[in-house]
Amino acid sequence: MFHKSSFLSFIRNAHSISVMAAVALIQGASRGIGLEFCKHILRNKSPVAVIAACRNPESAADLAGLADQHPGKVTVLKIDVNQEHDIKNAAEVVKKTFGKVDLVINSAAMLHPSGKGETSLRDVSGQGLVSTLTTNTVGPLLMAKYFSPLLLKGSGAFGQQPPEKSKQHSGIIVNMTAKVGSIGDNALGGWYSYRMSKAALNMATRNLSIELGRSRPKVVCVSLHPGTVNTDLSRPYHKNVPQDKLFSTEHSVQCLMNIINGLSVEKTGKAFAWDGSELPW
Amino acid sequence: MFHKSSFLSFIRNAHSISVMAAVALIQGASRGIGLEFCKHILRNKSPVAVIAACRNPESAADLAGLADQHPGKVTVLKIDVNQEHDIKNAAEVVKKTFGKVDLVINSAAMLHPSGKGETSLRDVSGQGLVSTLTTNTVGPLLMAKYFSPLLLKGSGAFGQQPPEKSKQHSGIIVNMTAKVGSIGDNALGGWYSYRMSKAALNMATRNLSIELGRSRPKVVCVSLHPGTVNTDLSRPYHKNVPQDKLFSTEHSVQCLMNIINGLSVEKTGKAFAWDGSELPW
Ligand SMILES: NC(=O)c1ccc[n+]([C@@H]2O[C@H](COP(=O)([O-])OP(=O)(O)OC[C@H]3O[C@@H](n4cnc5c(N)ncnc54)[C@H](OP(=O)(O)O)[C@@H]3O)[C@@H](O)[C@H]2O)c1
Ligand SMILES: NC(=O)c1ccc[n+]([C@@H]2O[C@H](COP(=O)([O-])OP(=O)(O)OC[C@H]3O[C@@H](n4cnc5c(N)ncnc54)[C@H](OP(=O)(O)O)[C@@H]3O)[C@@H](O)[C@H]2O)c1
Repeated sequence: MFHKSSFLSFIRNAHSISVMAAVALIQGASRGIGLEFCKHILRNKSPVAVIAACRNPESAADLAGLADQHPGKVTVLKIDVNQEHDIKNAAEVVKKTFGKVDLVINSAAMLHPSGKGETSLRDVSGQGLVSTLTTNTVGPLLMAKYFSPLLLKGSGAFGQQPPEKSKQHSGIIVNMTAKVGSIGDNALGGWYSYRMSKAALNMATRNLSIELGRSRPKVVCVSLHPGTVNTDLSRPYHKNVPQDKLFSTEHSVQCLMNIINGLSVEKTGKAFAWDGSELPW
Repeated sequence: MFHKSSFLSFIRNAHSISVMAAVALIQGASRGIGLEFCKHILRNKSPVAVIAACRNPESAADLAGLADQHPGKVTVLKIDVNQEHDIKNAAEVVKKTFGKVDLVINSAAMLHPSGKGETSLRDVSGQGLVSTLTTNTVGPLLMAKYFSPLLLKGSGAFGQQPPEKSKQHSGIIVNMTAKVGSIGDNALGGWYSYRMSKAALNMATRNLSIELGRSRPKVVCVSLHPGTVNTDLSRPYHKNVPQDKLFSTEHSVQCLMNIINGLSVEKTGKAFAWDGSELPW
């Protein structure tokens, strides 16, 4: 379950965190946008506990470095989102240690197992589709299943709370989507697996916003598109992106956190791009 | 590959069909709406060859009966849509025998392996999600992959051909979707696996319409919602449906064939309900 070297810091962590510290769990935290969310929240939120989940804690050097830089604030947990029992186990550990979560960010995803989206039907395979759907779509929904009880116990430490108690939220789920996952916006085609996985993820967001919007307190759920960001995921396509359209992870996450900091139940169940504009389904 | 008893009729079939007969392939043809599409097309289109694909030809008694009623016009092929090689093999057989397809209807689907949609996150499981996505979403796209070369060789025997040659289509793909697969229309939540599978299928429709709309001739692809229809799939919910809102398969398929008969490239890449209204994504 744990990266050994982070186990001790994890235990220290659990004891040093005050009950009211914000708890943020970022899944897919080893690299790219997920890693930057961890850094950003550690820099900008206090008191805070960051739970950084990734599939290979042993080799997540950047997360180990981050834990050293922010003693007692970072807990590295193993979650391979393709393994339901990893998610279930992690939720049990978080329950025992923190008793709540205020923010879950589902960041892990892939374009396709080959690393490149299908350019045409010729590239489509059943195995590629199922792998991509399992990681990008099933993983985030299973995260919501196992972590929603903890989000319902959150203190609403992220987002905006309206004055009416009945409209307040205890937690937020962010599903990282992509503009190419918008069916209505799709004019170019291609990238079958990725596009389909994100369209299905957007449906999950919508469903979650309804189910978790009926409870009291409520959990807000949105899909967010980060722009085209300079990470491994988009690397094969960087040469086609104008320099000013290729965001640094820092810029993208700053924009996304601005949106997250403004979230309330009024905005639940929608998809937003990095600039705050709403994406069509 | 073949249901033994249909093999001979298949061979007879292949020889008695004139080159210009319309060829329609219905996948998920053993029961419900798929079976009714076969019956409807046999009653209303001539000359025609109906390829009725199902996962257990041996036990598809209704299809065997239909083949007897319409000698030389029905070919029963084995396709379990979860088995990519079934789809590939079937496409090779159809290529050798008919050389083209004019219409592919992807009808096979399930609500969930349990037979009932999830009412809440409690019912969600990774295995349920993956099974539903594999049958309802991956299956239809693999059908498109392996049958699009044959649809590109179709004679445009279904739908409306505009006068301009550049806008004519050779074939049509129909993906059976559901209104609950519309993200924008989703106000009730629940049915996670089914809703997500149909949202992803709608993205596949859109992508297919783009890729196969670039070719010349073109292949039209739409998603169709049949209404709430009196079949096994909806049976657990029939008691909640007002009598006049629960369609017979005959009524639903009559409505859907009216839409199909009016299809052209102008309408490709969209989702329509049984009454011809366009569904939001
Ligand atoms: N970058 C863009 O331009 C862009 C654009 C639109 C949307 N997005 C979305 O933004 C999110 C983050 O993307 P990114 O650019 O940061 O991607 P990235 O740099 O390629 O990182 C992908 C992350 O997902 C993790 N991951 C993959 N499969 C996993 C699994 N089965 N279990 C656990 N973790 C897994 C990877 O972990 P390992 O280190 O263990 O491989 C890695 O941490 C994704 O949802 C992506 O679709 C990105
Ligand atoms: N009925 C409704 O109210 C309704 C409403 C909206 C949309 N729809 C859609 O309409 C379509 C037809 O539904 P229906 O009501 O006719 O359903 P149904 O009566 O339950 O029939 C389902 C069909 O799918 C086949 N099937 C399931 N898994 C398969 C697989 N792996 N490989 C091959 N065939 C498989 C079944 O074959 P076996 O006989 O071998 O099991 C059966 O022929 C579906 O796409 C459904 O989502 C239906």
